[in-house]
Amino acid sequence: MKHAAVLGASGYTGAEAVRLILGHPKLELTAMTAYSRAGEAYSDVFRNFAGQDLPPLTTVNEVDWSAVDVVFACLPHGASQETIAKIYDKVETVIDLSADFRLSDPELYAKTYGRPHEFEGFLESRVYGLTEFSRDKLKGAKLVACPGCYPTSSMLALLPALKADLIEANHIIIDAKSGVTGAGRKAALAFAYSETTDGAQAYGIGSHRHAPEMDQAIRDFAGKSVNVRFTPHLLPMNRGMIATCHVVLKDGVSVAALRKHYTSIYANEAFVHLLEEGQVPQTRHVRGSNHCQIGIFADRVANSAVIVSVIDNLTKGSSGQAIQNYNATQGWDETLGLQHVGVFP
Amino acid sequence: MKHAAVLGASGYTGAEAVRLILGHPKLELTAMTAYSRAGEAYSDVFRNFAGQDLPPLTTVNEVDWSAVDVVFACLPHGASQETIAKIYDKVETVIDLSADFRLSDPELYAKTYGRPHEFEGFLESRVYGLTEFSRDKLKGAKLVACPGCYPTSSMLALLPALKADLIEANHIIIDAKSGVTGAGRKAALAFAYSETTDGAQAYGIGSHRHAPEMDQAIRDFAGKSVNVRFTPHLLPMNRGMIATCHVVLKDGVSVAALRKHYTSIYANEAFVHLLEEGQVPQTRHVRGSNHCQIGIFADRVANSAVIVSVIDNLTKGSSGQAIQNYNATQGWDETLGLQHVGVFP
Amino acid sequence: MKHAAVLGASGYTGAEAVRLILGHPKLELTAMTAYSRAGEAYSDVFRNFAGQDLPPLTTVNEVDWSAVDVVFACLPHGASQETIAKIYDKVETVIDLSADFRLSDPELYAKTYGRPHEFEGFLESRVYGLTEFSRDKLKGAKLVACPGCYPTSSMLALLPALKADLIEANHIIIDAKSGVTGAGRKAALAFAYSETTDGAQAYGIGSHRHAPEMDQAIRDFAGKSVNVRFTPHLLPMNRGMIATCHVVLKDGVSVAALRKHYTSIYANEAFVHLLEEGQVPQTRHVRGSNHCQIGIFADRVANSAVIVSVIDNLTKGSSGQAIQNYNATQGWDETLGLQHVGVFP
Amino acid sequence: MKHAAVLGASGYTGAEAVRLILGHPKLELTAMTAYSRAGEAYSDVFRNFAGQDLPPLTTVNEVDWSAVDVVFACLPHGASQETIAKIYDKVETVIDLSADFRLSDPELYAKTYGRPHEFEGFLESRVYGLTEFSRDKLKGAKLVACPGCYPTSSMLALLPALKADLIEANHIIIDAKSGVTGAGRKAALAFAYSETTDGAQAYGIGSHRHAPEMDQAIRDFAGKSVNVRFTPHLLPMNRGMIATCHVVLKDGVSVAALRKHYTSIYANEAFVHLLEEGQVPQTRHVRGSNHCQIGIFADRVANSAVIVSVIDNLTKGSSGQAIQNYNATQGWDETLGLQHVGVFP
Repeated sequence: MKHAAVLGASGYTGAEAVRLILGHPKLELTAMTAYSRAGEAYSDVFRNFAGQDLPPLTTVNEVDWSAVDVVFACLPHGASQETIAKIYDKVETVIDLSADFRLSDPELYAKTYGRPHEFEGFLESRVYGLTEFSRDKLKGAKLVACPGCYPTSSMLALLPALKADLIEANHIIIDAKSGVTGAGRKAALAFAYSETTDGAQAYGIGSHRHAPEMDQAIRDFAGKSVNVRFTPHLLPMNRGMIATCHVVLKDGVSVAALRKHYTSIYANEAFVHLLEEGQVPQTRHVRGSNHCQIGIFADRVANSAVIVSVIDNLTKGSSGQAIQNYNATQGWDETLGLQHVGVFP
Repeated sequence: MKHAAVLGASGYTGAEAVRLILGHPKLELTAMTAYSRAGEAYSDVFRNFAGQDLPPLTTVNEVDWSAVDVVFACLPHGASQETIAKIYDKVETVIDLSADFRLSDPELYAKTYGRPHEFEGFLESRVYGLTEFSRDKLKGAKLVACPGCYPTSSMLALLPALKADLIEANHIIIDAKSGVTGAGRKAALAFAYSETTDGAQAYGIGSHRHAPEMDQAIRDFAGKSVNVRFTPHLLPMNRGMIATCHVVLKDGVSVAALRKHYTSIYANEAFVHLLEEGQVPQTRHVRGSNHCQIGIFADRVANSAVIVSVIDNLTKGSSGQAIQNYNATQGWDETLGLQHVGVFP
Repeated sequence: MKHAAVLGASGYTGAEAVRLILGHPKLELTAMTAYSRAGEAYSDVFRNFAGQDLPPLTTVNEVDWSAVDVVFACLPHGASQETIAKIYDKVETVIDLSADFRLSDPELYAKTYGRPHEFEGFLESRVYGLTEFSRDKLKGAKLVACPGCYPTSSMLALLPALKADLIEANHIIIDAKSGVTGAGRKAALAFAYSETTDGAQAYGIGSHRHAPEMDQAIRDFAGKSVNVRFTPHLLPMNRGMIATCHVVLKDGVSVAALRKHYTSIYANEAFVHLLEEGQVPQTRHVRGSNHCQIGIFADRVANSAVIVSVIDNLTKGSSGQAIQNYNATQGWDETLGLQHVGVFP
Repeated sequence: MKHAAVLGASGYTGAEAVRLILGHPKLELTAMTAYSRAGEAYSDVFRNFAGQDLPPLTTVNEVDWSAVDVVFACLPHGASQETIAKIYDKVETVIDLSADFRLSDPELYAKTYGRPHEFEGFLESRVYGLTEFSRDKLKGAKLVACPGCYPTSSMLALLPALKADLIEANHIIIDAKSGVTGAGRKAALAFAYSETTDGAQAYGIGSHRHAPEMDQAIRDFAGKSVNVRFTPHLLPMNRGMIATCHVVLKDGVSVAALRKHYTSIYANEAFVHLLEEGQVPQTRHVRGSNHCQIGIFADRVANSAVIVSVIDNLTKGSSGQAIQNYNATQGWDETLGLQHVGVFP
């Protein structure tokens, strides 16, 4: 049994971490923190926890770190690195869900996030935790940077092909779509119900912060130097993310071969499922779960294909993968606390 | 460990039962049945189960009953009683989620459901399982009739007051609202997305089949003979049910006293939570869970009050309560397999 | 041709007024005002107006009143009365969509809205414009107070019965439901997409500001002194409002008689439609239009009935009725600019 | 004044045609047909028309063609050509909204729609009515084939660049997204609310019937022979379509030049609006209207860009463009009956 703290428990990824930890057989939640809402009953912050026996919602400074083994940091970037630096020596493991330790290059971080990285020293040893591809390094890791939701969905779709040299690394277009929870919990007109429901839009075209992270993942996991073309969209749904990856097959590679390769790569994965030919992944089928479903399709033009993956942005795209990563650091069964299927309908 | 069969696994309540059983520590799913879709992979019927190791989806006739201890019957009314009659002697326990054994009076059943009851013999011993009020009878029961979703949400809101004589039994108006999953899984124009989204409506006014069941529950649990005024609505949401109960307090009873009584009645319930003064229950906070949240409010007119309860119609309103009822029959902790909180957001 | 100004054009009712005025054959939009967003292109405030030729969005102080005949004031209460007082003498007609002139009793206003009424002098001559019941007084009126959305939907459902003494005035329960646009355009966590979608809730139980306005309407139009029991709900839809009115018939009055009376009362109305027996009104069918649909149903208990009405809260519940009222002040055909049917699906 | 008939008035495009015709100053609706629902009151088929004075809903055979000048055929493909062949000589103009006359090559039609074209003779003279690019031919045309919704949104985004040789014709990827009304009005499980809401998915990848139509449009309007890569998606919204077009600029062409060209091409269009730099088109802003909004963005890789267009699939994508096309055939102002802006929120 390990003792867990959730920092930033008043946000959506924080609440999802709390929800998952409560169902984890080897984790006990011993601390939860918030900033402006510290001191409130947690069930006043998230009413779905009414009736649950939970630790108080305190500030970070009030936490008794001697009662904490693992920290799940669900803080905004910037705040996350500052907080982690302070508590790093006091706990066994830190699972960071922010963007602060995703990029290994502090200059790229500074350029992408508009602020210098102030704790570069941690970058050397941190593990980038795209679990299915990071397992070896995760075991025993102290600081894990969890990938962004777009990189998670996109890389699960693309890495097998890129690693095996089945597709052209320079002709990747990722047209991705996210539910509104991806924007976090905030009072902003742009995410008000009436401004967001019953309609769709692209955003951040050519400039989204997750794009450099995908370039890095492709370089680090598949050894290819590329700039992906990436266009995210905002859809009128709560949870859910779909990455539609338009790719060009290498000469001599068929869609059938591509499919066969993915079947093999993901055959033993608990959370990544290649659907059968003709089946289209739907985000609603992974709602609330740590699962990812992938479909592979021939496009109309010879040698072109479409690889589609769906995840729940708050679970596999964030807090679920964080738990999975922690399980991996401990050498536990990765599925602990995450076995539930999608809540459909 | 008990072995469970889910009959009618191709419907929404069936799928919810399967989902919950997979997470139940003392249940192993050994059979699943469907009618037209028997023979298909279950993950083709409900894609959220892709990658799960499940028994085959067969017809009822193909089930090996020697490997089944408990049956969760998620069949349409009519079909349910016929099937249960056939298998009753072959299993230990039958938890029926249909309407077939809810009404103890076969004539009322015939009038309400437009067909004679053909297995009246079972009615005598069946237990009507509104768990929080049926516990004593549930222990050891062989056949449990799970309440309808509207009766569940409404009775959890009303029974404490009725049993304690705090409100006028003859002045109850239940204005209830349900998500679309309450209509079941079917290809019907009335429940097509474009006919159902972004709008609201009442339906079945004065004639809904759950109304006589509520009258019965009030009679059986609170000893009052009444006809409730009941108007259901269909809302553009998936899961969720809200019962807004407009009541008149008995002379000398204050809203504070009403609230105090509910606090006491539900103090030790794992799934029913009286919210604090001023807090309004929201269906989204119990989404996917077996929880019920209740709020009590003074209305504008002296001696009038509003009691609001919210549940997930597929969980506490159906398959979740079914599991809870089965736990009760076995003398197990009622929360087994049901401890998770609502999936919010 | 009359020249119209829309004050508060950066809000939802303001935008709806602009949209309707653009399609009105006898109105020309000559001024639009906003507060913090004055100076922006209107199509930056509401992108649906891209490509339209519109007057600039200015502050109220910048308006050339000599070019304005009628003002549609879509301002918050408080701000509305102050602004109207300043411009009252400069224009022919003022149609106020705020709450400032709805209540004829300034003390009730102060109690309800938590601030004293500072321009009581206007209350004497203002006309409360529930068009179908206020026509005679509207003709030639200079200042019209448009009813709230809940009073509009509820009174269209109830007034015919109350005026004709067909129902018990003291046993009215209004269980109403609104789409999220009713909350206005604001950055508030409570109305964020992820906090509002896929779920339902009551709010303001026993304390909503529209309740005293309904009491007043019943007194003024039907001569009955009552306090209605009123519970509003917030639904996951954009536009739309449903008032489910639970009533008790007077002795000797049948539901058929009630229905017959409504048929007669509304026979010649362009915007209020009594549906046929068994047809349930749905808010989606009046979306974006000035129409109201009403259904009448027997409840289960003798002498009880349910009258349901649906409107679009932004149109008949606000800006559409405002235009209709203005048409009435001018003695024009009330349907000018409002003839379009609901945008379904 | 011309007299219009709507064939297939019981479907969504039919109802949208009826809605728009009712607001058209030079059209009078004199006939409406349906198949299984002929004989019903139209307000029973589409309740939003309650209270409207409409012609009866008859079968096609019952129509008095002497009272019809123009037919808007909103029938399924196959049924449309058969019906049009029968009535062609009896009316002045036929505006076909089906797929039957879109493809000029009957063999491609047969291959795409799985049935032979039986009225090839009409193909010679029919005009493919993508209004903004077909005006010259539309004037005086007797038979107009209205484009599919995906071709409309995609070609408005791509044709200006293709005609001016600003982008590589062989590197076009169209990632498009549609609301559920695009599937038509039908009782199908795949389009049931609970199977369609709160989630997203791709479908018809590499095989959608609108793809050959886009190839044809690019050939006919821009003189390029290509096969577009096209992936449609189904989103949880009613109306709305977004075409995200990933393109590669020709050598020496900048995004600024691309933008400048579109500004010029669409400067005088009433319905197509190039948004300013940085503004993202949102389908909700064109809801219920005939407008199209377009945004142009640089992608991350040199020489790559993203052109995004949004329309309402039922209006500009279908019945609105049909009216616009008819206006063009008559030499009328194209905006007649279509001037209204999007219904937002």
